[in-house]
Amino acid sequence: MATTLTETFTQPGSAGAVLAVLRDGRARTRSELATLTGLSRATVRQRIDTLLARQLVTPAGDAASTGGRPPSQFAFNPSAGLVLGADIGATHALLAVTDLAGQVLAEEQRTHDIADGPEAVLSWVVDSGRRLADSVSAEANLLGVGMGLPGPIEHSTGRPISPPIMPGWDGYDVIGHLTDGLAPVAVVDNDVNVMALGEHFTAWSDVDHLVYVKVGTGIGSGIISDGELRRGAQGAAGDLGHVAVPHAVDALCRCGNTGCLEAVAGGGAVVARLRDKGIDAHTSTDLVALSKGGSVEVVHVLREAGRDIGEVLATVVSMLNPSVIVLGGALAAAGEHLLAGVREVVYRRSLPLATQHLRIVPSAAGRHAGVIGAAVMVIERVLAPDAVDRPLVLD
Amino acid sequence: MATTLTETFTQPGSAGAVLAVLRDGRARTRSELATLTGLSRATVRQRIDTLLARQLVTPAGDAASTGGRPPSQFAFNPSAGLVLGADIGATHALLAVTDLAGQVLAEEQRTHDIADGPEAVLSWVVDSGRRLADSVSAEANLLGVGMGLPGPIEHSTGRPISPPIMPGWDGYDVIGHLTDGLAPVAVVDNDVNVMALGEHFTAWSDVDHLVYVKVGTGIGSGIISDGELRRGAQGAAGDLGHVAVPHAVDALCRCGNTGCLEAVAGGGAVVARLRDKGIDAHTSTDLVALSKGGSVEVVHVLREAGRDIGEVLATVVSMLNPSVIVLGGALAAAGEHLLAGVREVVYRRSLPLATQHLRIVPSAAGRHAGVIGAAVMVIERVLAPDAVDRPLVLD
Repeated sequence: MATTLTETFTQPGSAGAVLAVLRDGRARTRSELATLTGLSRATVRQRIDTLLARQLVTPAGDAASTGGRPPSQFAFNPSAGLVLGADIGATHALLAVTDLAGQVLAEEQRTHDIADGPEAVLSWVVDSGRRLADSVSAEANLLGVGMGLPGPIEHSTGRPISPPIMPGWDGYDVIGHLTDGLAPVAVVDNDVNVMALGEHFTAWSDVDHLVYVKVGTGIGSGIISDGELRRGAQGAAGDLGHVAVPHAVDALCRCGNTGCLEAVAGGGAVVARLRDKGIDAHTSTDLVALSKGGSVEVVHVLREAGRDIGEVLATVVSMLNPSVIVLGGALAAAGEHLLAGVREVVYRRSLPLATQHLRIVPSAAGRHAGVIGAAVMVIERVLAPDAVDRPLVLD
Repeated sequence: MATTLTETFTQPGSAGAVLAVLRDGRARTRSELATLTGLSRATVRQRIDTLLARQLVTPAGDAASTGGRPPSQFAFNPSAGLVLGADIGATHALLAVTDLAGQVLAEEQRTHDIADGPEAVLSWVVDSGRRLADSVSAEANLLGVGMGLPGPIEHSTGRPISPPIMPGWDGYDVIGHLTDGLAPVAVVDNDVNVMALGEHFTAWSDVDHLVYVKVGTGIGSGIISDGELRRGAQGAAGDLGHVAVPHAVDALCRCGNTGCLEAVAGGGAVVARLRDKGIDAHTSTDLVALSKGGSVEVVHVLREAGRDIGEVLATVVSMLNPSVIVLGGALAAAGEHLLAGVREVVYRRSLPLATQHLRIVPSAAGRHAGVIGAAVMVIERVLAPDAVDRPLVLD
């Protein structure tokens, strides 16, 4: 069946639909692709030619013959372009250049101060990101940049909304700055949402319901439900840090309320509690060292923080019924004690149906969760069927 | 541009795609439908003919002329079939026959006991549902049945999973029973999930993030996020009743834990607290009467229950960032006092970004939330583009 030229360009999503199937990394024949996409074989042939021309797909040898000439196979080519993932924290920033399969090819980190403001921070991202991409490939084709920022972000515009620890950033056009200087597509989100995406991509892509919890100076979470990140009405979903903890009504929080989870189990609270016990811990690095060194007081305080976090996560389990809870961030990295406290309370406190198949695990992506999530977020945008069929970026 | 016969039958979702556009109730010309669906005008013409033949679409007069012959308009015909919505509670059951736009055409209710088991309860649903449909139309074309049941349901199979108050129902093939006896399509879900769908359909279809809370003997919720009901990994999401309430650590709950929301703010707890004060209230109907009669004790206890519910909902607001929280169920119907308690705590306890645009409102669908939600759930299945293009049901 012949397709007319008009059809080729009006039929929605078809080169993108073929690419979407191939993005799982398996090589396939045209015939298999026709079956999987519902497109005709003639259309698949044409779409493959388009994708080959853009280098998004490469020939991948022949399939086993079933008698006649063995059919050619085609595979996604993740080297067709690069993206930059940027994990911008309050005091640390990590950049990574990845291929279109989210594989980290080069990275750079520095300490900084988010309060230096958007011009300074983003100029560094643009300069370093460009240099990092060039280091990977001389004719680096940087297709997009994804970024996580430590505050609430209006996802549709990428603008921070009254972020408490980011002076000068409120309403700033982050996407405009990044697309002006660095790459044609930019996507920005809250840092913990981005980490949730990175963790999901790294270790749990077959799981539809995951909650990623970051336990550092602050405490936050990213919610994946039915396979997608859920941001809520104002992009504020996942704000675990200022939930009230049962049994902890007295602790004063920087948000102005009392009894918030962050005020009893965040990095600052843990360090303060240890100082009260005469233990000299200032940073999460100190905590990790003391914990690994077997300090009973540190182990005790971390376990107690884990229990407090568990009280709130028990509610999250009842409400969202996730399959997996991942604990990331500096405090979670300080060994099994925090995790043990969380498990103890969640399994005691939630109903059996919701905990029967629940896994509570440490982060697999570790310190790369943010950059990988940021890269994956922009890859999804750049390789979305719509974007592939309107190749503003790719030609 | 001509379309070949082969294309007509291989191009996915097109008659369904045309219908999906028309389901908003507005009449449109073929030309408008071509623009809205991305299909060619010739294809739209053919799809409209198919839908006219199935009576899913009717001619709707002529549009205003722009010079030549005025173009014909077409509209969705919600009278093309009927569905049954069934809201099956522990002690009450309500059935409603609706058209394909979810409009209630006839209803029937009775008191019953869910513990009579699935055979007895579902036989009544089949008999009464058939009779109710016949009362609406002699040649009643009952396309499907949607049902809410008071326990956790595995949504994909419609089977109850270890439901605590439904002896005899564990693992029962509810869908099999309903499709054998009543209609070709059946969809089953937890009763509060179904109420959330009904409330969303009735009053908030333009809102993407809604939490419906039922406060009756038990307390439960249904979560709509990004426009869709979220059921979680085992269909157990929204289980608000057994979340721990800060300040209420001593109350013993029927689930075996202490401090559960249901144990301090459910109908049983409220009635018990009033009896301790010497007030003779046995049912939620008593409570409503006493509250409307101005009983200070009842008002006080309801407001306190509202505050307890508010403590848990503050966490839900931080986690999910909904635009709307709807309070339904018998206790919520007892006037403004419960609602006032909820509002008091949520607005005090949640972060400004999440509450700035948050509305906390009483149910608009009231006692019909469940049947409307059940009907809408099965209408979505019956009129889904895939189902319309494979008209097993509709021919």
